[in-house]
Amino acid sequence: MANLPLPTAPDIEDVRSAADRIAPYAVRTPLLESSHLNEISGGRLLIKAEPLQRTGSFKFRGAFNTVSRLTEEDMAHGVVAYSSGNHAQGVASAAQILGILAVIVMPEDAPRVKIENTQSFGAEVVFYDRYNEDREAIAEQIAEVRSAALIRPYEDPRIIAGQGTTGLEIAEQSRERDISLDAVLVCCGGGGLISGCATVFAEEMPETDVYSVEPEGFDDTARSLAAGERLRVDPDCRSFCDALQAPMPGELTFSINKRLLAGGLVVSDAQVSDAMRQAYDRLKLIVEPGGAVALAAALSGVFDCRDKTVAVVCSGGNVDADTFSRVLGEL
Amino acid sequence: MANLPLPTAPDIEDVRSAADRIAPYAVRTPLLESSHLNEISGGRLLIKAEPLQRTGSFKFRGAFNTVSRLTEEDMAHGVVAYSSGNHAQGVASAAQILGILAVIVMPEDAPRVKIENTQSFGAEVVFYDRYNEDREAIAEQIAEVRSAALIRPYEDPRIIAGQGTTGLEIAEQSRERDISLDAVLVCCGGGGLISGCATVFAEEMPETDVYSVEPEGFDDTARSLAAGERLRVDPDCRSFCDALQAPMPGELTFSINKRLLAGGLVVSDAQVSDAMRQAYDRLKLIVEPGGAVALAAALSGVFDCRDKTVAVVCSGGNVDADTFSRVLGEL
Repeated sequence: MANLPLPTAPDIEDVRSAADRIAPYAVRTPLLESSHLNEISGGRLLIKAEPLQRTGSFKFRGAFNTVSRLTEEDMAHGVVAYSSGNHAQGVASAAQILGILAVIVMPEDAPRVKIENTQSFGAEVVFYDRYNEDREAIAEQIAEVRSAALIRPYEDPRIIAGQGTTGLEIAEQSRERDISLDAVLVCCGGGGLISGCATVFAEEMPETDVYSVEPEGFDDTARSLAAGERLRVDPDCRSFCDALQAPMPGELTFSINKRLLAGGLVVSDAQVSDAMRQAYDRLKLIVEPGGAVALAAALSGVFDCRDKTVAVVCSGGNVDADTFSRVLGEL
Repeated sequence: MANLPLPTAPDIEDVRSAADRIAPYAVRTPLLESSHLNEISGGRLLIKAEPLQRTGSFKFRGAFNTVSRLTEEDMAHGVVAYSSGNHAQGVASAAQILGILAVIVMPEDAPRVKIENTQSFGAEVVFYDRYNEDREAIAEQIAEVRSAALIRPYEDPRIIAGQGTTGLEIAEQSRERDISLDAVLVCCGGGGLISGCATVFAEEMPETDVYSVEPEGFDDTARSLAAGERLRVDPDCRSFCDALQAPMPGELTFSINKRLLAGGLVVSDAQVSDAMRQAYDRLKLIVEPGGAVALAAALSGVFDCRDKTVAVVCSGGNVDADTFSRVLGEL
């Protein structure tokens, strides 16, 4: 990407167009509420349940929006993606629906459920070592050899517009219920989901504050927002939140987030585990670690919800059963 | 009930009226679909996700419809209910919303999550021994002493109409997506949910077959449908499906079910556990044992879904974490 000009940020019309495009295939996930969770937070929480999305995370939205916009000629050569697992499933599923080939570069230590699902959508999976190899370089090489389109996880306005449909639905569903939102909490890895959501709220509900939430150690967006420039995570850092381990904010996503976000929040592993248990108990929803950081911020008091109405994105539910059982047993 | 005349069965207008009444408080739960589950079943499955309902099961629907129709004078004396746990939470939550007192008679071996939630809604819980005491007699006595209204779990047209809103939503949501249903599979304990749903489908989609699904041993409705008269379960019978242990079909519910159901299906504990794991893996939804019997029938082939479009009600998700982890680990 370094030699290419930065693509233009998507606008609200791009998000609306993505919403139309994904509508026949994506789930309009519900905005859930629990009196128990309201009580814990001291405010009113509305939880966008993206684990119920096709492929078990919001990533299908951006993937389908992007892959379906390729030319027929591009489609004939298939697509390539790199991903810790949710973008992988999104691209694999989109490719399967559109009848084209997909190769996905995934870390060898990705959750089994993410690897198996990606393969079950008919994609070829190529493994790499998350800590010693450059996944982008591997994917770029495969794409070049095959003349295939590389579907990046967040540095693409079509991806950002697709993920932004999550925010568009939150705005619509809140309005349908005459709810005005004080804040929206969104998890942040590379920043695709939150930059798309922030684009929507800036236009649709400009009085609503949008905050990123990251796990300890991978708080590069929070630190970058504070510094006003993109900062890297410590390369030796590890996190329970396998979906949120991007090494630094995307250039395009950060250019949007810097402009539109109210701030960046950070939660601990223990707060994430607690949020996963609360989602089990109170929402009957499986939420994966990376998908639970925003809920963790709301329930732990990292974000003070008292007397506020706050939308919280639970972004995905692809977690291995042994990990999930371990979290349930930690109480 | 023996000395009272059988109340009139509710009709579709009663269900519509219940839908209006519960709308501000109940969740219009989504009808989910998974390509993986479709593949396993050989057909197309649409899964009504009632674990996402307020209180974690469909029982809130009937409870709120019934309790909210009491006179002000009745409300002043509070309500009494007996329940294995989901009707308990439904009545307790409805009473809390309406600002009235509730006493709930629950088996001492009910799942902890059901007991704790019932108490958390402000209800007083009275325990009984599921296998040696008569819960109805205990509840009737409490109701008499307090002049409180007894909210029965299924032998009440208001309860049946309320639970029937589940079916009304399935019919509406299918129609919104231009889907015509070959069959609907619904779990069956006392028969309130399925008699309400059957009432809806007889009117709205008369070509759709409605089947009850029960766990082995508690197959009283299946046997009663075959015999043409109400038969009891073996009193020594035990089941993993704590929510479906009614001793025999209700008189009112069976009078409806006998007329409207296409048949009764029976599934094993192993099939139920497998369905719970599939709901975890593919839907990211917590489904309790009793809530998973209909999905079990669809996935195991007990009901042959090949080339059919089948709606499946997952009726609740109130299962203790240790039980759920054990089921996940059984693979």
